[in-house]
Amino acid sequence: MIRKLESYFDRLWPINRSITGNGNRQTLKILSEIIDLKVDEILSGTKCFDWVIPDEWNVKEAWIKNSSGKIIVDFKDNNLHLLGYSVPFHGFMPLSKLEKHLFSMPDQPDVIPYLTSYYDKNWGFCLPHNQLQSLAKGHYEVLIDAELNPKGSMSIGEAILKGETDREILFSTYICHPSLANNELSGPLATAFIYSMLKKQKKRRYTYRFVFLPESIGSIYYLSVYGDYFKEKLVAGYIVNCLGTSRKYTYKKSRRGNTLTDRAAELMLKELEENYLIEDFSPTGSDEKHYCSPGFNLPVGSLMTDKYATYEEYHTSADNKSFISFEALEKSINRYLEIIYILKNNYTYRNLMPYGEPQLGKRHLFPSIGSQKNKDGFFVALKWVLNYSDGTNDLIQIAHRSGISYSLLVNAATQLLVSGLLEIVE
Amino acid sequence: MIRKLESYFDRLWPINRSITGNGNRQTLKILSEIIDLKVDEILSGTKCFDWVIPDEWNVKEAWIKNSSGKIIVDFKDNNLHLLGYSVPFHGFMPLSKLEKHLFSMPDQPDVIPYLTSYYDKNWGFCLPHNQLQSLAKGHYEVLIDAELNPKGSMSIGEAILKGETDREILFSTYICHPSLANNELSGPLATAFIYSMLKKQKKRRYTYRFVFLPESIGSIYYLSVYGDYFKEKLVAGYIVNCLGTSRKYTYKKSRRGNTLTDRAAELMLKELEENYLIEDFSPTGSDEKHYCSPGFNLPVGSLMTDKYATYEEYHTSADNKSFISFEALEKSINRYLEIIYILKNNYTYRNLMPYGEPQLGKRHLFPSIGSQKNKDGFFVALKWVLNYSDGTNDLIQIAHRSGISYSLLVNAATQLLVSGLLEIVE
Amino acid sequence: MIRKLESYFDRLWPINRSITGNGNRQTLKILSEIIDLKVDEILSGTKCFDWVIPDEWNVKEAWIKNSSGKIIVDFKDNNLHLLGYSVPFHGFMPLSKLEKHLFSMPDQPDVIPYLTSYYDKNWGFCLPHNQLQSLAKGHYEVLIDAELNPKGSMSIGEAILKGETDREILFSTYICHPSLANNELSGPLATAFIYSMLKKQKKRRYTYRFVFLPESIGSIYYLSVYGDYFKEKLVAGYIVNCLGTSRKYTYKKSRRGNTLTDRAAELMLKELEENYLIEDFSPTGSDEKHYCSPGFNLPVGSLMTDKYATYEEYHTSADNKSFISFEALEKSINRYLEIIYILKNNYTYRNLMPYGEPQLGKRHLFPSIGSQKNKDGFFVALKWVLNYSDGTNDLIQIAHRSGISYSLLVNAATQLLVSGLLEIVE
Repeated sequence: MIRKLESYFDRLWPINRSITGNGNRQTLKILSEIIDLKVDEILSGTKCFDWVIPDEWNVKEAWIKNSSGKIIVDFKDNNLHLLGYSVPFHGFMPLSKLEKHLFSMPDQPDVIPYLTSYYDKNWGFCLPHNQLQSLAKGHYEVLIDAELNPKGSMSIGEAILKGETDREILFSTYICHPSLANNELSGPLATAFIYSMLKKQKKRRYTYRFVFLPESIGSIYYLSVYGDYFKEKLVAGYIVNCLGTSRKYTYKKSRRGNTLTDRAAELMLKELEENYLIEDFSPTGSDEKHYCSPGFNLPVGSLMTDKYATYEEYHTSADNKSFISFEALEKSINRYLEIIYILKNNYTYRNLMPYGEPQLGKRHLFPSIGSQKNKDGFFVALKWVLNYSDGTNDLIQIAHRSGISYSLLVNAATQLLVSGLLEIVE
Repeated sequence: MIRKLESYFDRLWPINRSITGNGNRQTLKILSEIIDLKVDEILSGTKCFDWVIPDEWNVKEAWIKNSSGKIIVDFKDNNLHLLGYSVPFHGFMPLSKLEKHLFSMPDQPDVIPYLTSYYDKNWGFCLPHNQLQSLAKGHYEVLIDAELNPKGSMSIGEAILKGETDREILFSTYICHPSLANNELSGPLATAFIYSMLKKQKKRRYTYRFVFLPESIGSIYYLSVYGDYFKEKLVAGYIVNCLGTSRKYTYKKSRRGNTLTDRAAELMLKELEENYLIEDFSPTGSDEKHYCSPGFNLPVGSLMTDKYATYEEYHTSADNKSFISFEALEKSINRYLEIIYILKNNYTYRNLMPYGEPQLGKRHLFPSIGSQKNKDGFFVALKWVLNYSDGTNDLIQIAHRSGISYSLLVNAATQLLVSGLLEIVE
Repeated sequence: MIRKLESYFDRLWPINRSITGNGNRQTLKILSEIIDLKVDEILSGTKCFDWVIPDEWNVKEAWIKNSSGKIIVDFKDNNLHLLGYSVPFHGFMPLSKLEKHLFSMPDQPDVIPYLTSYYDKNWGFCLPHNQLQSLAKGHYEVLIDAELNPKGSMSIGEAILKGETDREILFSTYICHPSLANNELSGPLATAFIYSMLKKQKKRRYTYRFVFLPESIGSIYYLSVYGDYFKEKLVAGYIVNCLGTSRKYTYKKSRRGNTLTDRAAELMLKELEENYLIEDFSPTGSDEKHYCSPGFNLPVGSLMTDKYATYEEYHTSADNKSFISFEALEKSINRYLEIIYILKNNYTYRNLMPYGEPQLGKRHLFPSIGSQKNKDGFFVALKWVLNYSDGTNDLIQIAHRSGISYSLLVNAATQLLVSGLLEIVE
C-alpha cells in the first residue's frame, strides 16, 4: 500500500486545489481510481444555511516581475505563492504599494505561508519573509490571470458502501488544500484507501459513507442536505485529516463526548498505542465544528497524528512530502480499520441465564480440571461477557472495564451467542 | 481607598461590639457614612425559630483591682478583657475564688482570648496566661458595671441597591466582634465599600442586599423574616468576613455546591489568583451554617483570606491592626467586585443559527485573510460562544471549559447578540 | 478467642471436604458447637437453574504403589493428593500411562496443587513436581476406593439470628476446600465466630443469616431458593473467605458498587486501616459472582486479607496452618464486627428544626463559654448531623463527608434524637 500511497500523492501534489475549481475536479477524478466516487457540482450562488456557494475560481497564470522583467514569484513554482481566491489583476506598481499585497511570516522566514481570502475580494502573493526583505525598491509588474465565475460550481465527491442496515458510519475529508501534505493530502488519501479496504468485505453491518468536500463551505452545504438524515442514521463519524506523520496520536472527541464514535477510538488507542492524547471537543479546528454545531451535534470526532495548528510546518510550504511518511499514513489507515472493527463487532447482549453463573463445563467452554489458578484469558472473557450482558453494557464498555482485549471478548460473545446463552439487544 | 479603610478601621476599632448594645448602634452609624443603612431594632424577647433575642447588654466600666487597690485588668484597655455578656457584679474575693472567672490560653500565654457567655448567665475576665500566672495571692476587688436590659433590642443594618429585577445578590456580614481585626472588622468594612462601588453603577441587572448583623442570632432572625423570600429570589449570596490578610484565598462553597455563587467565585479565583483553596461546605464556621441549614439551603458561600479558626491569632487580641493590611483588604474588595462582574454578565444564550458555523466574515467578525494560524483570541471566543450557546451552558461554563478569559467571552457574546446571532435564554 | 480458633482449626483441618460427602457433614457438625446450624441435605440430581446437584462423593482409601509395592502417594497423608471427585479405580499400569493422571506445578515444584474434576468423570493424583520427576519407570498399582452415589446429597448449613425486622444481613462462606487454610478454613471459622459474638446481643435491628455451602453449586442452589427473597430483604451481604493472614485488606465491591454493603466496609477500612485496597467488582473469584449475577445483582461484597488467586500459596499444600495466623483471623472477625456496628447504627435522619441552627446551648449540648476555638469533637459532630440530616444522607455518608469518627456521629445523632431535634427516616 505504501508505494501506491506515494504514487497517488505525487500525482495529486502539484494540483491547485481550493474550495472550487478545476483542480478539485481533477483531484476527485484521480481519487476515483481508488474509490467509486460520485461527483456532484453545486452551482455558485446556491444558498445553504447562512452561506452562499462562491463563484468558481480558476487560475491560469500568476506572477510578479521585477523591474528587469524577471519573474521573481511564480504560481507555477508553488500553488501557495498565490493568495487563495485572488481576483484577476494586472498592473505596475512601486514596491511600497505592492507590499500591501505581499504576505510572509517573519517568525518562519524561509517558508511560504498558506493564506486565502475567500469571502473578501482581494489579491496577493505569499512568499518567504527572507525573500520579501530582499526585494529591491523600484517598480514591479503583477499578473494574476484568474477567473471568478458566477456560473461555476463547487465539486464534491461521495461514495457509499451499503450495509445490512441504513445506519451509517461517516468519513468526511476535505480537498481544498493545495500543495500541503499532512494537512491535507493525507486525509483524502487515507479516506480513499479505507474505502478500498472495506469494499473487499462481503457483509457489512453498517452503511459506510465517504465524502470529499472543501472545508467549511463543503460540509455546511452537505449538512444542509444530509444533516437531518444524519441525526437519525449516523452511528459514528470521523473527520479524516492530518494523518501523515509518525508522532503520537491525538483523538479529539465529539461535542457530546462519550459517543460510540469516541468510545471506539479511545479503545483502539488504549489497545494499540502507548502514548496518545485524548482531547475534549473544541469548536475551533476543521469540519467537526460544523458537524458538531449545536443544531446538529452529531457524533463526529477526529483521529490525528500531528493535529492541525499544533506544529510549526502547519499551513506553510514546509508541510510537504518530506514532512510526512507513507509508513505513518498506512499505519493511520490501519488504525481507522481497527476502529471500524471495534464498531462493527460492538453489540449489547443480554444473558439468557442470568441467575448465577451458567454451567460452562457442560457446554465445553470450561477447562475440565478446575482451579482458579487457571487464568485462561478466554475463560475469563466468558465470565465478563456473561456477567455484564444485562442489556445495558456493550462490548466496548466491558473491554474498558475488564481490561480484557476486545477481540477476545468478541470471540467469547460469539461463542456464547452460538451456545444460546446470549441474545443481542437492539 | 486604602486610607479611607484605615481611617474607618481606627474609628471602629475601640467600640465594644456584641450581639446587642450601643456599640453596635454606634458602629452602624459610622458605617452609614459609607453605605445608606437602614437600622432596625429587634426587641429583646422576640422569638425567631428556636431562638429568642436576648436582653440588651451595655457596659460602663469593668475592672479588677488588686489588694493595693491598683487596677490590674481594665475593660477600658481592651474590650476583650471582659467575658462577653458578663452580668453586673461587684465584690471582693480571694484569688482562689476569682480564678474561676478568669480565662486565658496556656498555649498562647501573651494574648487575651476572646470569649463570650451569651446564653448562660456568668461573668468573667480574659487575660494573658502570663499575667494570670503572675497574680499574687490575696484579695481582689471586681467591678462589672454592666446592664442586661430585657426592654432593649438587637440592632441590624440593611441597605438595598435596586436592580432591574428583584432577583438578589446578598452580602451578609457580622458586627458582633469587639476589637478583632481580620475576624471581623474586615467584613463590615469590605461590605460597606463594596456597596459604595456598586452604587456608582447606573444600571444594575440584579438587586443587591447588604446586611450587617450579629453572628448567628442576627442571621437566624433575618432568615426568620426573609428566608422564604430568599429561597425564591436569591441568585447568589456571600458571607463577607476574614478578608484582611494577604495570604492565599480560601473559598468555601455553598452546601449545594456548584451553585452560581460557587461557580462565579471559582472562576474569579482561577482567573486572578495562582494559589487558592476551594473547600466544600461544612456546617461549622460562620453564618453560612444558618443560610445553608437544610430548611433553607441557600446558595451562600464565602471568600476569605485567613479563614476563621485556621490561624493562631484568631479570636485573640493578636488579631489586631498589625495583623492585617489595608492593601490586602482593598484587594479583597476588588475580588468581590470581580465576582459581581462575573455574575452580572453571566447569561445563557441560544445560537439562532445553530446549523454549521454562521458566516462570521460577512458580519465583519472574522479576519478577512483566513488561516487557522490566526489564533486571535476574540475570534476563538466567538466560536466557543456560538457552539456552546445551545440554551444550556452559561458563559461561566463556557469560560471554565474553554479556558478563554471571561471578559473576552462577554465581549464576544455581546457582539454576537448585537449581530442577531444569539438570544438570551431566561 | 485465638486458642479456640486454633483448636477448631486443628480438628477441621484433616477432614476431606468437597462439594458433597461425609467430610462436609462432619465439618458442619463440629462447627455446630459454635453456631446453631440447621443442616439441609439436597438430593443428588436436584436441578437448580442451569445446574444439577452431583452424585455424592466419598473416599475410603486412595494411593499409588510402586513396583516394589511401596505406597508412594497416599490420600491419607494429604487430602490434596487425590484429584477432587476422582472416580473409583483400581489397576496396574506403566509410568507412561499413569502420568496422564498425575498433576503437578512445574513452577512450584515442592507443593501439591489443589485440583478437582467435578463435572467431567476422571481420576488423578496431585503431587509435588519434584516427586513426579523422580518417579522410576516401571509399573505402578493405583487404588481409588471411592464412591459416587447418585442417591446421595449435598449438605448445607444455615443459621439465623432473628432481628426486629426481617431485613437481612448475610454472611456466606464455603466448606468445599479440603486441607487449605487461608482459602478456605479461615472463612467457615470466621463466620461461626461472628455468629457467636452476635448471638450475645440482646436486641438486633436486622436479621442475620449465616450460610455454609460448597462453592458455586452451593450458592447457586441457595439462590434458586432464596434469590428472590434476597432481592427484597437483603440489606447487605458478604462472602466470608480468605481472612487468615496479616497482610493488608482487599475489599471487593458488589457489582452495583456504592451499596450499603460497600459503604460500610469502606468506612470501616478508612477508620481502622492505614493500607488497604478497594477493588471494583469482577465476575471472577468466588460466590460473589453468583450473588452478583445480573439476574440477582445483590449487594454482596467481600473483605479479604490475602485475596484468592493473588498469592503463591493459593490452592496448594502451602496454604496451610503455618501460612496463616490466628491473631490475624481474630482481627478479621473483629473487622467484620465493626462493619456490623456501622450497619446497625446507620440511619437517615431528618432535622426537625431545619431553619438555621437550633440553639444547642439551652439543651446543654453546647459549651456555655463560646468561642470557635473550641473544637470539641462532639460539638462539631452535632453540627454535621443536624445540617446533613435532611432525609437524604445517612450517617455513613456524613462520616465520609465530615471525616468525623463514625462512633462520635452515632453518639451525636442519638443525643439529638433524644432531644427531639431529629427523627428517623424509614
